[in-house]
Amino acid sequence: MVDEIAADPSHPRYASLLMRHRLEIAAKKGMLADSALIAHGRGEAFDYLLGERTTSSAMAATRQALACLQRGKKPLLSINGNVAALACDEMLKLAEILQCPIEVNIFYRTERRMEAILAHINERKRVLGLDVTVLGEHPDARIPGLKGPRASCEKRGILDCDVILVPLEDGDRCEALVAMGKTVIVIDLNPLSRSSKKASITVVDELSRVLTNMIAIAEEEGVLAPSPTYDHDKILAQALASMMGNFTEG
Amino acid sequence: MVDEIAADPSHPRYASLLMRHRLEIAAKKGMLADSALIAHGRGEAFDYLLGERTTSSAMAATRQALACLQRGKKPLLSINGNVAALACDEMLKLAEILQCPIEVNIFYRTERRMEAILAHINERKRVLGLDVTVLGEHPDARIPGLKGPRASCEKRGILDCDVILVPLEDGDRCEALVAMGKTVIVIDLNPLSRSSKKASITVVDELSRVLTNMIAIAEEEGVLAPSPTYDHDKILAQALASMMGNFTEG
Repeated sequence: MVDEIAADPSHPRYASLLMRHRLEIAAKKGMLADSALIAHGRGEAFDYLLGERTTSSAMAATRQALACLQRGKKPLLSINGNVAALACDEMLKLAEILQCPIEVNIFYRTERRMEAILAHINERKRVLGLDVTVLGEHPDARIPGLKGPRASCEKRGILDCDVILVPLEDGDRCEALVAMGKTVIVIDLNPLSRSSKKASITVVDELSRVLTNMIAIAEEEGVLAPSPTYDHDKILAQALASMMGNFTEG
Repeated sequence: MVDEIAADPSHPRYASLLMRHRLEIAAKKGMLADSALIAHGRGEAFDYLLGERTTSSAMAATRQALACLQRGKKPLLSINGNVAALACDEMLKLAEILQCPIEVNIFYRTERRMEAILAHINERKRVLGLDVTVLGEHPDARIPGLKGPRASCEKRGILDCDVILVPLEDGDRCEALVAMGKTVIVIDLNPLSRSSKKASITVVDELSRVLTNMIAIAEEEGVLAPSPTYDHDKILAQALASMMGNFTEG
């Protein structure tokens, strides 16, 4: 059923069902953690409250995030299993526009999942004919403050970057990256999550919508200037207000 | 990790992780539809907004639901894959208290899933030593207004019952049961879902909490009287208000 609907872009649930379809494929490839589908379902509930659209506050956060990535000395895009499943092509396109590397960095790190995710990204990179450095295969550094395999990263990637996009990120790791002094950009549909609160910039919006917006803005407007008056807490409060407005109207 | 935490009831996420653990086991047994984990994640998000507790309006709905089941001429408990995974024992115990049958009725009906769910329920029934009729294996009737395998049911079960508990039910099927003139009791964490709106009584609360409450009330208070002034829309509005209150405080 999902296959049929996913082939018909006029279906009202097209975007949502397409994302589920991508997760099913990724699950079969061994790219996902056990908790991946449940986490996606939580996101779906918040997107439903948001009206499954990009709000004006989310667009303001998207522009600020893009500006910081464009102005960064060493920007980097971090990609985990769900991100690779849901928006691999968009992550690769954005990395090419920004001329920055992508690093695969997963919370429940196993060699098998790392290999499955890297194989998927490199396959899509080849198909799209993009020139992007994909890191993560040979970790030689650790994120301070994290324990176990989840701290692993590459020195020339996550360790040394100054601006990092970490979509759908765990709260502990978001905090550890902020503590390193980096500008941390989170994409998270729950405005109350620890990641959303702790990040430097949080885009409360669905991943593929955010990346599509960033790519379109970069292509149409070039390099943006960050807003000096950008207010993280205010943007989060506006996201919450949008959800509550839709919640009561429903 | 889930196994470790699920063994420690003092962990703040114990109940939530125990439910995930039960879903993992059920998935391995082939009891779940592809969409089961995503649906559970959506529920988790709403339970998070609810504060993962039984509100007073949910308790009022629980008492009304129990009263209607107790007073029904032919009450029935409907059980699908997620319900069998999350609260099989509680459903069996409630059925024994009510002396009513359980019927396995799943939306994405395949023989393999039906067999896996029936085997799980019958195994738990044996372990608990309960005398409960479990229907669903030999459908001989159809729910009017539904198409395909999802309409299948048993005449002496879903077709002829007058009060039916359908936890975590699909909107189409909830509407079809209401159209048959039955008292339809839904358990759903989303107060805005079609099932929640269309049901006769909706308990906006987590499944295992509701069933545990029903069993305790029936054991302590016996047969309840339904409230003549019970107001479905008001109860749903109160559930929504509880969530919004927690949402802003978060």
